Amino acid sequence: MGDLHNGGRRLPFAIEVTGFADEEGVRFASTLLGSRAVAGTFDESVLGVRDSAGISMRDALVQFGLDPDHIGAAARARSELLAYVELHIEQGPVLEAEGLPVGVVTAIAGATRLAASLTGMAGHAGTVPMPLRRDALAGAAECIVAIEEFCRTDEGGLVGTIGYIHAMPGATNVIPGQVSFTIDMRAPTDAHRKLAVADIVRRIEAIAGRRKLVLQLDVTHENRTVPCAAWLKSQVSEAIAGQGYPVFELPSGAGHDGMAMIDIADVAMVFVRCRGGISHHPDEHVEPADVDAGARVLLRLIENFRPRSAAERM
Amino acid sequence: MGDLHNGGRRLPFAIEVTGFADEEGVRFASTLLGSRAVAGTFDESVLGVRDSAGISMRDALVQFGLDPDHIGAAARARSELLAYVELHIEQGPVLEAEGLPVGVVTAIAGATRLAASLTGMAGHAGTVPMPLRRDALAGAAECIVAIEEFCRTDEGGLVGTIGYIHAMPGATNVIPGQVSFTIDMRAPTDAHRKLAVADIVRRIEAIAGRRKLVLQLDVTHENRTVPCAAWLKSQVSEAIAGQGYPVFELPSGAGHDGMAMIDIADVAMVFVRCRGGISHHPDEHVEPADVDAGARVLLRLIENFRPRSAAERM
Repeated sequence: MGDLHNGGRRLPFAIEVTGFADEEGVRFASTLLGSRAVAGTFDESVLGVRDSAGISMRDALVQFGLDPDHIGAAARARSELLAYVELHIEQGPVLEAEGLPVGVVTAIAGATRLAASLTGMAGHAGTVPMPLRRDALAGAAECIVAIEEFCRTDEGGLVGTIGYIHAMPGATNVIPGQVSFTIDMRAPTDAHRKLAVADIVRRIEAIAGRRKLVLQLDVTHENRTVPCAAWLKSQVSEAIAGQGYPVFELPSGAGHDGMAMIDIADVAMVFVRCRGGISHHPDEHVEPADVDAGARVLLRLIENFRPRSAAERM
Repeated sequence: MGDLHNGGRRLPFAIEVTGFADEEGVRFASTLLGSRAVAGTFDESVLGVRDSAGISMRDALVQFGLDPDHIGAAARARSELLAYVELHIEQGPVLEAEGLPVGVVTAIAGATRLAASLTGMAGHAGTVPMPLRRDALAGAAECIVAIEEFCRTDEGGLVGTIGYIHAMPGATNVIPGQVSFTIDMRAPTDAHRKLAVADIVRRIEAIAGRRKLVLQLDVTHENRTVPCAAWLKSQVSEAIAGQGYPVFELPSGAGHDGMAMIDIADVAMVFVRCRGGISHHPDEHVEPADVDAGARVLLRLIENFRPRSAAERM
């Protein structure tokens, strides 16, 4: 913005730089708060959600000097916006592996999250012979190995993660009677992800059945895939090429505010290389030179921006 | 005892009925406290161990009106004792499956416990492609499945249990970077258990190596197998047969005070059937009729008891 201003450059459209509130949803386990407000899709019911200290989101907003009753006023209309473009670190290791500072995002991958629970029979680690066991953790372990194997042999970019596991009662000398764990599944298209989830559910059901474990499986979260707009993506590619970098396309496995903004604007994203693909961790790091590369791509995109033509809209 | 007394029966040896303090070691994570004191093997250093509230075992004993400095006085000499016999519920499902109220214990199985930790690399569940992952939980799951498979295909009564697992950071959308879990291995003989542990350690090392995970493995607990004395076991069998029950031998997978008493006396145990093999749980249950059967076997054993002959001692 400073560059445009200092150069005395006037554009035929306005630029708005937005820092959205709480994309992550750490405190209230509710994501995309700011961007949903701007997109006019803010769910008022989340105002009643309480953090771990028992403070509701409504009270937290008030304490911060905000007025929860005016969230609706942040909503923008689709007719006001030409495009939404987001610059973000990759949060993955692909650009680093490719030796590129920036990349064009093809889509923000949808995600399905499930909460799984397996119930067998707790028992003494010394007294129950192996054939008489209904070990919930051994069953969960077989599920985890099966999910990993299923994703590893998939050729369509499917990823599956078990990030949380809890075995009860959790004592060294007790066979676990119950285990709960989460499953996070993502793929570049909704169809691929949904097929994969259905397939994995069938495999887990078979494992539970064979081991005489009671399976409880609930979908806790389901996000559609958000494709980046082709016309906007090609202008991002032009800007990258114009800066002298090879154009490299990759999907975003992580969620971003574009998932909310798609409701009121066509979306594009520019990824910047980060070190080791590490994110949400004290070791998260991006080289200043790569940030500069990303910012220059964004500036070039803005300088050369052509709104989607009436013909393209048809 | 009442039966003998009421019958006016006088025996050529004394009977001592002992209820040992804290065999389980729940509060201070230190087992066999009472029986070790009687066996003269009480480890004074455990007096300094603190419970979860920060109270030392020494202070807890004093608060209970006991004198920790006189624990040594509880020690008995081998020459004072003819035999040690323990009556206990099986804590397993074998007698129930066999349809028998009582059984003769062949040995108290030794146990090796290990603490395992696998360290890989935490990462975003959406952005790290499967081939680039070093998922500590997927590695742990493969280890758990391998340990179960190894024990299930063993024909020598080997049992292996992973009772505790903890994945860090433990969030749905983060690939676990570190996982810790416990391994509890038991077998009817020390040689069999030690071979099995060595074999399992090699398998875990191979899994960790192939997945580029850093493995830390520590033995936290090692108990020898305590065989029941053949001469005493045969008198237990006679008593069971004398009561009209089939004689059935089985090992004890759980630990018992006999593990300490073996240092000063030959040991035997009588097991009583319990419901569903459930133990250390509110559902633990034994039929009064089976308790009666066990007590009558013990009484008959005492009435007919012949001390080990000088010839047998050689």
